[in-house]
Amino acid sequence: MIPSFTLTDLIKGLSVKLQGDPACVIQGLRPIHLAKTGDMTFLNNSLYRKYLATTQASAVILTEKDAADWQGNAIITDNPYFIYAKIAAFFEHTIIPAREIHPTAVIGENCRIPENVTIAAHCVIGDNVTLGQEVSIGPGGIIGDGVQIGDQTVLDAKATLYHGVVIGKRCRIASGVVIGCDGFGFANHQGGWHKVPQLGGVVIGDDVDIGANTAIDRGALEDTILENGVKLDNLIQIGHNVRIGANTIIAGCTAIAGSTVIGKNCMIGGASCFAGHINICDQVMITGMTAVTKSINEPGIYSSGIVGAVPNHEFRKNNARFHRLESLMQKVKQLETDLKAIKERG
Amino acid sequence: MIPSFTLTDLIKGLSVKLQGDPACVIQGLRPIHLAKTGDMTFLNNSLYRKYLATTQASAVILTEKDAADWQGNAIITDNPYFIYAKIAAFFEHTIIPAREIHPTAVIGENCRIPENVTIAAHCVIGDNVTLGQEVSIGPGGIIGDGVQIGDQTVLDAKATLYHGVVIGKRCRIASGVVIGCDGFGFANHQGGWHKVPQLGGVVIGDDVDIGANTAIDRGALEDTILENGVKLDNLIQIGHNVRIGANTIIAGCTAIAGSTVIGKNCMIGGASCFAGHINICDQVMITGMTAVTKSINEPGIYSSGIVGAVPNHEFRKNNARFHRLESLMQKVKQLETDLKAIKERG
Amino acid sequence: MIPSFTLTDLIKGLSVKLQGDPACVIQGLRPIHLAKTGDMTFLNNSLYRKYLATTQASAVILTEKDAADWQGNAIITDNPYFIYAKIAAFFEHTIIPAREIHPTAVIGENCRIPENVTIAAHCVIGDNVTLGQEVSIGPGGIIGDGVQIGDQTVLDAKATLYHGVVIGKRCRIASGVVIGCDGFGFANHQGGWHKVPQLGGVVIGDDVDIGANTAIDRGALEDTILENGVKLDNLIQIGHNVRIGANTIIAGCTAIAGSTVIGKNCMIGGASCFAGHINICDQVMITGMTAVTKSINEPGIYSSGIVGAVPNHEFRKNNARFHRLESLMQKVKQLETDLKAIKERG
Repeated sequence: MIPSFTLTDLIKGLSVKLQGDPACVIQGLRPIHLAKTGDMTFLNNSLYRKYLATTQASAVILTEKDAADWQGNAIITDNPYFIYAKIAAFFEHTIIPAREIHPTAVIGENCRIPENVTIAAHCVIGDNVTLGQEVSIGPGGIIGDGVQIGDQTVLDAKATLYHGVVIGKRCRIASGVVIGCDGFGFANHQGGWHKVPQLGGVVIGDDVDIGANTAIDRGALEDTILENGVKLDNLIQIGHNVRIGANTIIAGCTAIAGSTVIGKNCMIGGASCFAGHINICDQVMITGMTAVTKSINEPGIYSSGIVGAVPNHEFRKNNARFHRLESLMQKVKQLETDLKAIKERG
Repeated sequence: MIPSFTLTDLIKGLSVKLQGDPACVIQGLRPIHLAKTGDMTFLNNSLYRKYLATTQASAVILTEKDAADWQGNAIITDNPYFIYAKIAAFFEHTIIPAREIHPTAVIGENCRIPENVTIAAHCVIGDNVTLGQEVSIGPGGIIGDGVQIGDQTVLDAKATLYHGVVIGKRCRIASGVVIGCDGFGFANHQGGWHKVPQLGGVVIGDDVDIGANTAIDRGALEDTILENGVKLDNLIQIGHNVRIGANTIIAGCTAIAGSTVIGKNCMIGGASCFAGHINICDQVMITGMTAVTKSINEPGIYSSGIVGAVPNHEFRKNNARFHRLESLMQKVKQLETDLKAIKERG
Repeated sequence: MIPSFTLTDLIKGLSVKLQGDPACVIQGLRPIHLAKTGDMTFLNNSLYRKYLATTQASAVILTEKDAADWQGNAIITDNPYFIYAKIAAFFEHTIIPAREIHPTAVIGENCRIPENVTIAAHCVIGDNVTLGQEVSIGPGGIIGDGVQIGDQTVLDAKATLYHGVVIGKRCRIASGVVIGCDGFGFANHQGGWHKVPQLGGVVIGDDVDIGANTAIDRGALEDTILENGVKLDNLIQIGHNVRIGANTIIAGCTAIAGSTVIGKNCMIGGASCFAGHINICDQVMITGMTAVTKSINEPGIYSSGIVGAVPNHEFRKNNARFHRLESLMQKVKQLETDLKAIKERG
């Protein structure tokens, strides 16, 4: 029952250099400070380099540079975390779902559903739905009318896709995700709010991952779009008409207001917040809990907020000072004027 | 299959002025910078006025003032966004759900359910539930014991209402919404937390919209209340005993702690946070990502936080300075004292 | 139908002092400012002490000190909120679910399920699942393969547990909770993000409460752990490999990034945000909306951010000043230098 691979097995097809015994048997993976004999580990974060001296791991994935300090079996690469990701797949307890439509699933009319899909118990599939090869829809999934899902995309239990949502190939949608709900559009008339019909859709590219309980609104007129390779964490809010560029990765609890466009290859820290109708160019990194209120036109790392928890009694003083910052500035200006007068007076 | 309406059709019953050809045929709606011949568009946001010179739209909804710069067909109104909302309804792909109880739905005892409701596949309805005329409950909906839902209210797929929740007429509840879960009440006794029973309910008025994956706690003793016309976006947290006044609108990812009361006609920006046990008066606007920690007694626009992302190296300096703001203030005070001494010595 | 208890009934087994009439009949509970004859109330928060003079409650739970100002029936204790929690249980409309497996539930193979459990309509239970005595799984619950749930744990409607999740005894899991979804781990290789298999699990202790729509990731290699007595509010994000110590309580919309360890008996305010890979010691209190970016090694109260909403025109000035705080500091330094020069010049 315990998996067991030689180093030779594990590096097949990977561009790495093997140092040590190719026949060394690996039976598990553990973090470097916890690894035992029989485990493989990896060294990716310099915070953990100190453990290299004491780890009991039978093999370590690390860079050429770090390998200089390690006499044991090693898999040497420029990108230890990527190679670890590849090797870890050998140890994954993959549950291949039965390629069947469970008898409790309810399927609408005029659907195009290949034979090799999985539709689990208590799913509800609407009319005119098109599923690709080997699509898997977990228990309790709800697929609205006219939805299209590409080959090998996997929806975990209880994902919800509203009508007309289009999803590409090899995507992974976690439980509780809601895609295609109405955008938040209301017009005020005489004090009351009147719903603005949300006529757009949601189009999601290939290789997109979406984390648990994330919500993605359908567009108001055009579509909300996630390009290929976008990765979203849990509990993210994507407003209507948002467009997120290819290979952009967004950490949990981030909120993106309507009609904002985020470029390609961006990295967005958790609990960040984006105003609506702004543009973020490619290759922007936003640190966690930043409030982005204006467009960003140059690649780089951007931040706002006050971060770094300090003792509350210090915080309260500084917080109070912040609320009088303008008056502090005025004091300093007055000092400058006075000092200038004194200097001139000689 | 393509919808097709004359301007005369579209403005029937609306208080607007028509300029140009009443027989002009409209087949779709598009944003002003994307509109083609056959499309109607609208101009509501001054950011987009520049497109008026080049739009190919066959008709534009705009104000009298903006109409001065537009020679084509126009629908003239003081409130273009509201008139757009009304006209957009013609282009909505409305799915009228079958007025039936799906055979897979599980219905409890002693329910009062009119014939014209929709209860979709895999719903679970408790005992003593009362549904109004034309109520629609999407697939996988869970309705607890004793729930009451008013006429024409629509629950999208997989909404959950706990026991005893009361919802008014014409409400729209998106997927993943949870209403009536226990409030977060624990009493500490000798280091452990003991649950405080949550004995109140949730009462929601008419014409309330609630966005995907939002959670609304039941009251501890009294009820949590959303008055008529409240609009909540996605992923909002409403604590126990909160009361939200009529026609208040709240953007996504906002958190409102227990027992806080928010007035009528307020507008709350996204990712805001309200402390518990405070009162916000009517007609308050809160900008996004604000932390509201005290009651607000005067209408107006309020804010906190630090917004506006800047390059990280600048941010880090300013952030560090913030944490020493009190000492900066002390330096300035010392300078003032010194300068005063110099002046007096004069 | 109305519950009715004497004070003697209500305090049975509690370490309290009764003042007044033991036969006084209590038929309900209300907040002190709303209580009527026949109601019991409690006084826990000094903000509400002013109502003691006018409350119509038939009995009040309060401290010895507060009792000096109250002539009526009283239950006297050091911890009125805890005693209220105990007494409130008498007034709870407890719905004891039928101890049955609903015929629409789908149950996998090789499960160990005692006779006294509740598995409600449209649940889906995987293979090799072990349930304790009197476990209750609400309608639409999804329990993955190999999950273990301890005695008397209650899952409300539509909770989702991924494969292999382990939950202790007497836990309460609200609707929409997702536990055991994949952590957010991707390795970048030539611009694209490659999924890092998430091989760990989630282990949750006894007496843990988890609020609606909260998401808890499974570990990357080791497990994500919630120790005994942890209380989580709604819409919280717990990243992979996080460990939360016993009796720590966390308010809504908090986000905890991967591999962060939080100690025992901590209290975390709502909408807070924790960076990954940091350690928070025992008995730390974090105020709401704080961004914790570094480890905390001393018990105490910690804060960050700017809290306290102020009129927007003031805020905008101060916010702008913040972004020039470094230059303000430089001005002050220059003033100090100049002043020193003047002094030295005499």
